[in-house]
Amino acid sequence: MNEKLKIICKTMEQQAWDTVLITNPKHIYYLTGYASDPHERFLGLVIPSGEEPFLIVPALDAESASSSSHVSRIITHQDTDQPYEVLSRHIHGKVGTLALEKGHLTVSRFEQLQHFLQFQQCEDIGPILQRMRVCKSSSEVAVLKQAVQLVEQVLRDGLKSVKPGVQEVELVAELEYLMKKAGAQGPSFDTMVLTGTQTALPHGVPGSRRVREGDLLMFDLGVFYGGYASDITRTFAVGGIPPKAKHIYEAVLAGNEAAISAVRPGVTYGCIDRAARTVIEQAGYGPAFLHRLGHGLGLDVHEYPSVHGLNEDLIQAGAVFTIEPGIYIPGTGGVRIEDDVLVTEEGALVLTTFPKQLTVIG
Amino acid sequence: MNEKLKIICKTMEQQAWDTVLITNPKHIYYLTGYASDPHERFLGLVIPSGEEPFLIVPALDAESASSSSHVSRIITHQDTDQPYEVLSRHIHGKVGTLALEKGHLTVSRFEQLQHFLQFQQCEDIGPILQRMRVCKSSSEVAVLKQAVQLVEQVLRDGLKSVKPGVQEVELVAELEYLMKKAGAQGPSFDTMVLTGTQTALPHGVPGSRRVREGDLLMFDLGVFYGGYASDITRTFAVGGIPPKAKHIYEAVLAGNEAAISAVRPGVTYGCIDRAARTVIEQAGYGPAFLHRLGHGLGLDVHEYPSVHGLNEDLIQAGAVFTIEPGIYIPGTGGVRIEDDVLVTEEGALVLTTFPKQLTVIG
Repeated sequence: MNEKLKIICKTMEQQAWDTVLITNPKHIYYLTGYASDPHERFLGLVIPSGEEPFLIVPALDAESASSSSHVSRIITHQDTDQPYEVLSRHIHGKVGTLALEKGHLTVSRFEQLQHFLQFQQCEDIGPILQRMRVCKSSSEVAVLKQAVQLVEQVLRDGLKSVKPGVQEVELVAELEYLMKKAGAQGPSFDTMVLTGTQTALPHGVPGSRRVREGDLLMFDLGVFYGGYASDITRTFAVGGIPPKAKHIYEAVLAGNEAAISAVRPGVTYGCIDRAARTVIEQAGYGPAFLHRLGHGLGLDVHEYPSVHGLNEDLIQAGAVFTIEPGIYIPGTGGVRIEDDVLVTEEGALVLTTFPKQLTVIG
Repeated sequence: MNEKLKIICKTMEQQAWDTVLITNPKHIYYLTGYASDPHERFLGLVIPSGEEPFLIVPALDAESASSSSHVSRIITHQDTDQPYEVLSRHIHGKVGTLALEKGHLTVSRFEQLQHFLQFQQCEDIGPILQRMRVCKSSSEVAVLKQAVQLVEQVLRDGLKSVKPGVQEVELVAELEYLMKKAGAQGPSFDTMVLTGTQTALPHGVPGSRRVREGDLLMFDLGVFYGGYASDITRTFAVGGIPPKAKHIYEAVLAGNEAAISAVRPGVTYGCIDRAARTVIEQAGYGPAFLHRLGHGLGLDVHEYPSVHGLNEDLIQAGAVFTIEPGIYIPGTGGVRIEDDVLVTEEGALVLTTFPKQLTVIG
């Protein structure tokens, strides 16, 4: 049994849980090494107290599960089976307390489990997994660094295609092609390329708009590599941009740097959000910094912690998260500068190395 | 109020529900025209009985929501807000019965809702939306046809890159690049290209394996276009393939055609699964047809109905689903042939037009 599963078993013992059921495929990968997207089919890692853990997988995934999982006991179900009934047949004795991921399991599945397992009580193992995931192991950091390197190379290569007249969606296609060619599993989220006033939409969708001289041009992209996500945003100037756009850029950059300087183990996440926000407020753009400072990064591109002003959790060494202040002015445009940082005893080790000074391209 | 929202309101009245909360972004798109991926942030469409429906969206999405949604009342929440608390402030009076999507809402969110709304009873609106989605309107069919045409052009163009020595992942990169270039929102699932014995894994993951003379080569791909998904599988021969592989191919093709012929309004989904399965069993490969015949296709690439032998629901005109029998022989390889069909009064209208006779490429 690997170290992570041992932590789960120890928790079960301490909490007097009878059975643990893990259904989030990312957590199944984290705990067993078996990566799978079962779509709407049922996939579970079951850890019955004092018994051997097992995976319950769709029959068509049996071969890939047994070839990659550290957990060697594999139970299968067919599309015509009721998977919760199959599950119940492999759990011996009454389930007093079942621990599951309340943040992943749907209400429907919960009701099915209740029906077939008739457990008496239900606890949430989600927060424990969330906490386990915050501090990355050295092997996880190594993979994250590769995911960051890969996306930075993609951005570098993708910029060669920028010229007036090229469409946002064409740049997206080029970037995602470069990701795949470079060996990424895929984008870690929908690649965003926005031009001109479209950059004022923090969650804008790339369209047919063409790059023009005088535009702000924003790239927000990431890749999955080895199961881990990277995430970077850089904003560029296409030719000369108005003084106001430059002023916004400098305010965002100052906010980004202030937040990075504030990172160290033991301070709160809220404190680093406020470090960036104060700088941006002082520049006169407080209300235009519409979102939180950042988010945890790892198996998910958005994971715990949420880096916002009210998060009073303490930063721990080993945590990896984004720092991505932004200013969005409807009609003018927006700027966001996003780095991925690893917390060390000395402070933030910035994993993203792409230059941050305002750069003219195209 | 649009027709779809009117159906929901009518159902509310019939069922005596006080409030409906829709949280699945696809259903929000379906009902309001507002497409969004809120990631872990809270997004909801709220329909209070006898009051104007409203969207509750993350503050940073307010502009894009109000510019695309037919529902004009938009409530926002900040990252530092408790969104369920914000929600509760906009629902007047006690909520007796709340209808929500049990198949989408997580147990955590359900508990939060329960805490802030203090509803007395909870019903599942999921099955109603599922049923509404089965029969596609003519405008939905038009978009689905475009999604199919687009992916078929991508497959046609992608095949030009097939030659001995090319890697599975290189072909995936090429195909997904072609999708984006052609204007797709993206792949509707992870594009699958498998070669040789890898084709025996129905959910195999493309890797560094290179195409070789004598291989079976399987492509399973789809795109999202205008919010709707296409999905096609074709299996090719790279040069000459062994007689057994040809035999498997012919059995799968016969199964595919038998199922298509069996489609008409009023027969059960189980019946068409059995039509294909019987042919494949007679060819001697029954146990190697490891999965269901197909799945509904629309806003999701896998949606209701699940086309398997035990589904006794009746096929309706207007339904769109896949027919994708497969045979998988470990050590030898696999073949799957997948079409997308629209049910008309006359039977199956096959939307996919890509040739199905065994074709030698490379």
